Amino acid sequence: MRPFALSMGDPAGIGPEITIKAWEALRASAEHAFAVVAPPAIFAGIPYSVITNITEAGAVFRDALPILSIDGAVGMAGHPTSENAAAVISSIETAVALCLSKQADGVVTNPIAKHVLYEAGFQFPGHTEFLGHLSQDHDAPYAPGPVMMLAAQDLRVGLATVHVSLKSAVTQLSTDRIIRTARVMLGALALDFGVKNPRLALTGLNPHAGEDGALGREEIEIINPAAQALRNEGFDVTDAQSADTLFHAEARRTYDAVLAMYHDQGLIPVKTLDFHGGVNITLGLPFIRTSPDHGTAFGIAGQDIARPDSLIAAIKKAREIADNRHAH
Amino acid sequence: MRPFALSMGDPAGIGPEITIKAWEALRASAEHAFAVVAPPAIFAGIPYSVITNITEAGAVFRDALPILSIDGAVGMAGHPTSENAAAVISSIETAVALCLSKQADGVVTNPIAKHVLYEAGFQFPGHTEFLGHLSQDHDAPYAPGPVMMLAAQDLRVGLATVHVSLKSAVTQLSTDRIIRTARVMLGALALDFGVKNPRLALTGLNPHAGEDGALGREEIEIINPAAQALRNEGFDVTDAQSADTLFHAEARRTYDAVLAMYHDQGLIPVKTLDFHGGVNITLGLPFIRTSPDHGTAFGIAGQDIARPDSLIAAIKKAREIADNRHAH
Repeated sequence: MRPFALSMGDPAGIGPEITIKAWEALRASAEHAFAVVAPPAIFAGIPYSVITNITEAGAVFRDALPILSIDGAVGMAGHPTSENAAAVISSIETAVALCLSKQADGVVTNPIAKHVLYEAGFQFPGHTEFLGHLSQDHDAPYAPGPVMMLAAQDLRVGLATVHVSLKSAVTQLSTDRIIRTARVMLGALALDFGVKNPRLALTGLNPHAGEDGALGREEIEIINPAAQALRNEGFDVTDAQSADTLFHAEARRTYDAVLAMYHDQGLIPVKTLDFHGGVNITLGLPFIRTSPDHGTAFGIAGQDIARPDSLIAAIKKAREIADNRHAH
Repeated sequence: MRPFALSMGDPAGIGPEITIKAWEALRASAEHAFAVVAPPAIFAGIPYSVITNITEAGAVFRDALPILSIDGAVGMAGHPTSENAAAVISSIETAVALCLSKQADGVVTNPIAKHVLYEAGFQFPGHTEFLGHLSQDHDAPYAPGPVMMLAAQDLRVGLATVHVSLKSAVTQLSTDRIIRTARVMLGALALDFGVKNPRLALTGLNPHAGEDGALGREEIEIINPAAQALRNEGFDVTDAQSADTLFHAEARRTYDAVLAMYHDQGLIPVKTLDFHGGVNITLGLPFIRTSPDHGTAFGIAGQDIARPDSLIAAIKKAREIADNRHAH
């Protein structure tokens, strides 16, 4: 069992605050030991310990927040600036490197603000794509991703299209994309979540899953053919289901995960059911990555009111996945 | 206080079954008295009373299901056929006429199956549009609709686009459409729900409400201009909000209703929160109309397992609205 590497996130957001609160909540629990990759000055005022190797994190975790020190601006809560960008990016890169070299059991990322990073030359649509880039040359057998999955309570939802306009999501949707995403999810359900013979439900794109073509033909032409192809591979996958009747408690017992066709279709039920405790999981990378499913929340940063529930849930989820992988 | 007129819905679906169960649940409650417009043979085996005028419904409601008799096929549970279509349509027409002539306080519709009616020449996309057609020549001051609204627990959601493909919803969305729909909702919140100075939240169309244009420009070009125009009229209306963070308990306390941009965006949270008790309300008609928010459920019809919760909630909601209107 190895510790997790936490990236610092944007230091002007709630990342530092929820990191401290998560450490306070988890410090007595050795299995959830982590080190945060950050300039130590961000954590002035709380008991921290600068370590030189992440293997030391477990030994100090109970008494002090373990920090792997990097250089960079410290930032001021509520005041994002591109001066912080280099440290924010470096923190992610270092955390990923620790995973790829098997020194950490996974990376848990604090929230970043893309527009702040764009001003400093960052060129990725988001965290997920940057992590995919950092790992793309890595020789790993299990790296077909990245696929974005959200988990909250008893609900797991993967996305066929992610951070694009709704109009583009409709255009991007293809049988091949659904098949590729579903395979990653089905693999992860077995490997990361210990689900034997996982059951995957596909949403429709249109109201009432198109009503036999009366309200759109993507179900007939794109989604159901993907479902059939996956069933031909031996997977337990449904045809397109009406998305509005797929997420209540009884329906959730009929599947192990849902593959939603676009962002809001998947995230609305997750965040409606569990706003504070949802976790974002990137499947299909050569390492484990989880994160809270909220943003930097600049508006409340530094006021000591941010809730660490989602970050804590992300760390626990990373442990659960790592344990399942080690058991294989 | 006048009784409500229930349409029979498709007799091959769960309509007859949930009508009986709703009557059993409500028979002791005079304020919820209703008559169902149907061929009496549908209700063979239970105590019913054929009345000739809906004003008699209240007097018999405690002891027998009041029926306003129409001719037509009886159907067989689980076996939909277009032979039933004439009676299904006639039932709706009669129920609406009773409202327009002020003999009933509102119409509560049981579920229909459009494809069955289409085979018999029905030409409307759904119930809502048919009701709009039936009332369009009626001289009523309050008939700017129809607008589809769903209500469940503390959540009310109206739809800017309804039963069209997602691709068409994106195309149909316009500033004018949002303004018209919002005005109907704001009027109904005050008149039908007794909310003074109602607060309306608009969803974005795109993920994260477009992230300042990075993930789509409809928020900037279509939705926010509508919000500004409505605020200029004195209404309390928000700019486009991220739909995924708008429906959890804390968020729901910040508005009286949400105007969602398309079907699944509005119905997913409603049915995730309250699958059995949600109610569909048609705003902007010259009469009150509610219905359960589920379909005919042919697959379970006649097995005595259908739950009447949503129909009961629809009748109670119609009473609530009627009382609010009478109080004005």
